[in-house]
Amino acid sequence: MMQPITSPTLLLNKKVCKANLHRMVEKTSAHDLVLKPHMKTHQSETIGEWIKEAGIKAVTVSSIEMARYFYKAGWKDITIAFPANPSQSHDLNELAADCNITVLINSSSVAKSLANKLTQPINAYIEIDTGADRTGIPSDRTSKINDLIAVIQHTQMLQWIGFYSHPGHSYQARSEEDISKVHQSVLSQFQALREKFSSLSDEFEICVGDTPSCSVADSFTGIDAISPGNFVFYDLMQTQIGSCEISDIAVVMACPVVDRYPQRNEIVIHGGAIHFSKEQITQNGVVHFGQLLTPSNDHWELLDPPAYLTSLSQEHGIISCNPTDINNYTIGDTVYIAPVHSCLTANIMERYKLTEGQTIDLMK
Amino acid sequence: MMQPITSPTLLLNKKVCKANLHRMVEKTSAHDLVLKPHMKTHQSETIGEWIKEAGIKAVTVSSIEMARYFYKAGWKDITIAFPANPSQSHDLNELAADCNITVLINSSSVAKSLANKLTQPINAYIEIDTGADRTGIPSDRTSKINDLIAVIQHTQMLQWIGFYSHPGHSYQARSEEDISKVHQSVLSQFQALREKFSSLSDEFEICVGDTPSCSVADSFTGIDAISPGNFVFYDLMQTQIGSCEISDIAVVMACPVVDRYPQRNEIVIHGGAIHFSKEQITQNGVVHFGQLLTPSNDHWELLDPPAYLTSLSQEHGIISCNPTDINNYTIGDTVYIAPVHSCLTANIMERYKLTEGQTIDLMK
Repeated sequence: MMQPITSPTLLLNKKVCKANLHRMVEKTSAHDLVLKPHMKTHQSETIGEWIKEAGIKAVTVSSIEMARYFYKAGWKDITIAFPANPSQSHDLNELAADCNITVLINSSSVAKSLANKLTQPINAYIEIDTGADRTGIPSDRTSKINDLIAVIQHTQMLQWIGFYSHPGHSYQARSEEDISKVHQSVLSQFQALREKFSSLSDEFEICVGDTPSCSVADSFTGIDAISPGNFVFYDLMQTQIGSCEISDIAVVMACPVVDRYPQRNEIVIHGGAIHFSKEQITQNGVVHFGQLLTPSNDHWELLDPPAYLTSLSQEHGIISCNPTDINNYTIGDTVYIAPVHSCLTANIMERYKLTEGQTIDLMK
Repeated sequence: MMQPITSPTLLLNKKVCKANLHRMVEKTSAHDLVLKPHMKTHQSETIGEWIKEAGIKAVTVSSIEMARYFYKAGWKDITIAFPANPSQSHDLNELAADCNITVLINSSSVAKSLANKLTQPINAYIEIDTGADRTGIPSDRTSKINDLIAVIQHTQMLQWIGFYSHPGHSYQARSEEDISKVHQSVLSQFQALREKFSSLSDEFEICVGDTPSCSVADSFTGIDAISPGNFVFYDLMQTQIGSCEISDIAVVMACPVVDRYPQRNEIVIHGGAIHFSKEQITQNGVVHFGQLLTPSNDHWELLDPPAYLTSLSQEHGIISCNPTDINNYTIGDTVYIAPVHSCLTANIMERYKLTEGQTIDLMK
């Protein structure tokens, strides 16, 4: 982990990442679940290969572009977990000619518009809003769900295969107990839906996909598949939610110290909003964009007492130090910082550097 | 402006951008200032050509990579407005072999370390902290400044050419009057420095570069050069500060409506944190990531009553509508949204689409 760096570098600890992956694979095996990992977190063909090697056959993505990238990398079963956009039917047809594509359909108008433009069969999940209030039909609106199933089943090219939900309200949790409450509510809602619609098809599938619930839950009754994404990397937000430990975080930013201001108890790093993203979090009353780590051979640990990345401009980052610690930093040093939200940090960087030294590109 | 789009698209109104550019060029001519525009806002060779055509010879960038990109695009006078990083001396030497390179030096240790590694002569500004508390030596620490000038002048390869400051505290302004107060303070500080160090060299230069002050100030006494960046595009943050009008904003995100939730008075767009960035702003008591616009042929105008992009996940954006307006939106529509911070939105997108239709790439 002590590779010399000259500019902001996204370090990836392969061992921690693979351990996270294998823990989730083992959990899904134990609960007879299909794991369709969400690739939006890492956006990397190479990490996709690690996932393939773990025996995974189907993946989840968040856009057509990402579906195309992973199709080219050899994936043949891809869920685009985003409300289907009929104006992208040309791309969907191209992909579906050689790949099992599943989209989310939330309204009859989209189902009809899309079906009219499809020349290839495509699977459709109906997205259920289980409480996140982002997208999907609320689970208690069974009449609307019923009508939509009928519309989809009436089309030639769309095949209704079940329900999908991203219980994003688990991100409001601050303990395993909070996460469990969200998860139990999701299980109950799907139990009710399964009973309601059991006569329609024996085979429909229920897929849910938030990293907090998938990480801590020990019951998945009524669920067939899960599609968490963040779990391969985790981050500070997930530790705050209660999904993981700091030692499970697989990606950190390594940044050079470029300036120091002892009178302000601050050091300045090369590492700004275009490296970390501006995702912020509040911990111990401090609003910040990252927290300093101590490297070890196996994993990273939080610096004690804590130090935070408290300000970001485009390329500059300011770290507020403890008065006793400011003299530990010299211009030219490398500092290691846990990102608040690893998905956004990975998206904004162009590549990973493995702690062993090799470089891995992201989709661009 | 009514080009059909199928995915999040960063639209650039060339006419507004060029008008912003020419207004700043005229101002610098009138005040006998050198304009060294900061290219970090647009990161585009093509927009660089528009700047060249306006008679500009020198530019400012925020990293070595950006310096290299614009050097390849034909620029021969480049200031890297970031604390110099001696570990990047190899890249500096390469660039400086055929380009007039200026860096910021804030400490004697960096000056010495860098000078030891340079094989090409490089110019150095000393960065002055005029109140932003980010980087630079506070202007009243004249003894430290004096020592640093001496250290730089003692090296063979570093040539001290003057002082640089980014008065980023102007971003706290909320009116032209607030901006003027910051600007007057900056002018006073540099006036004192010029008097203090006038015996050292007749020729040293003072360069300042924040878009708010450069946009609204009408006096630049004692200043030789300015390096604003954001002014070519402007954005919502600049309208809040008081630097510009909405009609001066040159870039907007065009996003497809992919879902609608009349019961929540919300529409969902394809356009998330990986398109807008997570820069947030508070206006009219609403924390948001963008504000809806109405397109016209010449420029964009704010929707009245206002509607805001109030939530972002990776690819989803949620727009809170007025109850009376929700029925104006249909799935498949395109909405136009002013970004909070155009530099970060441009950085995160891969290309601009001109409102006339052509595509312009960004540095990647």
